[in-house]
Amino acid sequence: MRPGADPFTRRTPRVVAARRLQRRRDRDETGLFLAEGPQAVREALAVRGRVTELFATAEAVERYADLVAAAAHVSPIDDDGLASLAETVTPQGLVAVCRHLDVALSEALTRRPRLVAVLAAVRDPGNAGTVLRTADAAGADAVVFAGETVDPYNGKCVRASAGSLFHLDVVRAGDPAVVVTALRDSGMTVLAADGYGNHDLDTLADDGALGVPTAWLFGSEAHGLPAELAEATDARVRVPIHGRAESLNLAAAAAVCLYASARAHRRIAR
Amino acid sequence: MRPGADPFTRRTPRVVAARRLQRRRDRDETGLFLAEGPQAVREALAVRGRVTELFATAEAVERYADLVAAAAHVSPIDDDGLASLAETVTPQGLVAVCRHLDVALSEALTRRPRLVAVLAAVRDPGNAGTVLRTADAAGADAVVFAGETVDPYNGKCVRASAGSLFHLDVVRAGDPAVVVTALRDSGMTVLAADGYGNHDLDTLADDGALGVPTAWLFGSEAHGLPAELAEATDARVRVPIHGRAESLNLAAAAAVCLYASARAHRRIAR
Repeated sequence: MRPGADPFTRRTPRVVAARRLQRRRDRDETGLFLAEGPQAVREALAVRGRVTELFATAEAVERYADLVAAAAHVSPIDDDGLASLAETVTPQGLVAVCRHLDVALSEALTRRPRLVAVLAAVRDPGNAGTVLRTADAAGADAVVFAGETVDPYNGKCVRASAGSLFHLDVVRAGDPAVVVTALRDSGMTVLAADGYGNHDLDTLADDGALGVPTAWLFGSEAHGLPAELAEATDARVRVPIHGRAESLNLAAAAAVCLYASARAHRRIAR
Repeated sequence: MRPGADPFTRRTPRVVAARRLQRRRDRDETGLFLAEGPQAVREALAVRGRVTELFATAEAVERYADLVAAAAHVSPIDDDGLASLAETVTPQGLVAVCRHLDVALSEALTRRPRLVAVLAAVRDPGNAGTVLRTADAAGADAVVFAGETVDPYNGKCVRASAGSLFHLDVVRAGDPAVVVTALRDSGMTVLAADGYGNHDLDTLADDGALGVPTAWLFGSEAHGLPAELAEATDARVRVPIHGRAESLNLAAAAAVCLYASARAHRRIAR
């Protein structure tokens, strides 16, 4: 950064252009998205060329000198400008413009994934981001955003993923039925997480059925999976409900299913 | 309901009084809280005397005749009045004023619980409600809201619990350290969910250490558990992180821990 450069305010053309990336249409058109805060920015900078521009306040330039040094293009910004770009109250002075990083399903499959999460019509970006984070923690290789699922580059999703968006293969796909077919054709077992499924998760774990490469299919928060889609999988699996709750929420169900697979994979590896 | 009664609007004294229950201070003072929508109202009505007043629109009176018949006191309300009482966009015409239902920890312990979740300084009501729902699904007997944890009667918590607030013993307690001592004195094993814990959850499960009556202690979303509190438990347990995520979010970690206990309890029962 040129010393003494006037920081960009909220009305500067570059800030205005970047702010448009809060809208899906503009993200889709430009192939760019925003990542806020030092944690996400650090993850984004780990791959050369991914960050096209780093907006940083004077304070952040001092505090995160390593990140600023790693960015190819740093734009100074004042607090007002930053506030207009960031969706959180405390982005700690940093917002990065990043290139989309999703890969085709066929590419993700060439890496022979052992654990995949597929989101079909998950509408809440916070839920989608939380599943991304949980899938990463469980050691998943890829997360597929299929059909009517929220945009992975939605700001809330990026933040809820807590950096995990940058850790595994993110796939954007169309019809979830086509995704299920491709996964099965690749040799993976596809399991539908379904509160009304006829297979119990614990029983499958006991029977050793979870030790194979597995893709979990998760449906919408409100409606679950369409019956036709669930029936196209290898099995419809329910997380057992031991108490009086009617169901689990999406993120909790995903955590239990993905960790059950992770545990089964590691038992077999021993 | 008296046929032809004028429905209460947003300015009616009863609606104004009920609306105050959106604030914690008023909930604490009156010992009342609000539950919205047919699912929560149905759960609330299951215990006689719990619902002190049911606000219902004309449409809801027709549609949910069974619920209206079960309520001791029904107050007609118009859409404007309902909108001012409800925190969701779609309460489907029903808001109930309910009596607090928490019990003392000593009372919950007389029922010899096998699985308990303790929230210490959990600040987000949505997270707390989700853990309530997950604990219920996992067959927990009680959830303790300790120390600086959010009010269980917060509207967002009630909604996120999806009815589970009404299914198990809810305890409001002070100092979490006192709760830990009481739980241990009662013979329960207390495990701290701690990303930096020295025990691995899977190893404990493999060793059969989860088969005993267990209370899980969960800390704040931002800071986890204070070291002193975690050290006062029987063990600090980490959910294994197999990928590159730094941590799991609270609700996901709680789901994995509580379901690991549920599974261990049921293996022993067989």
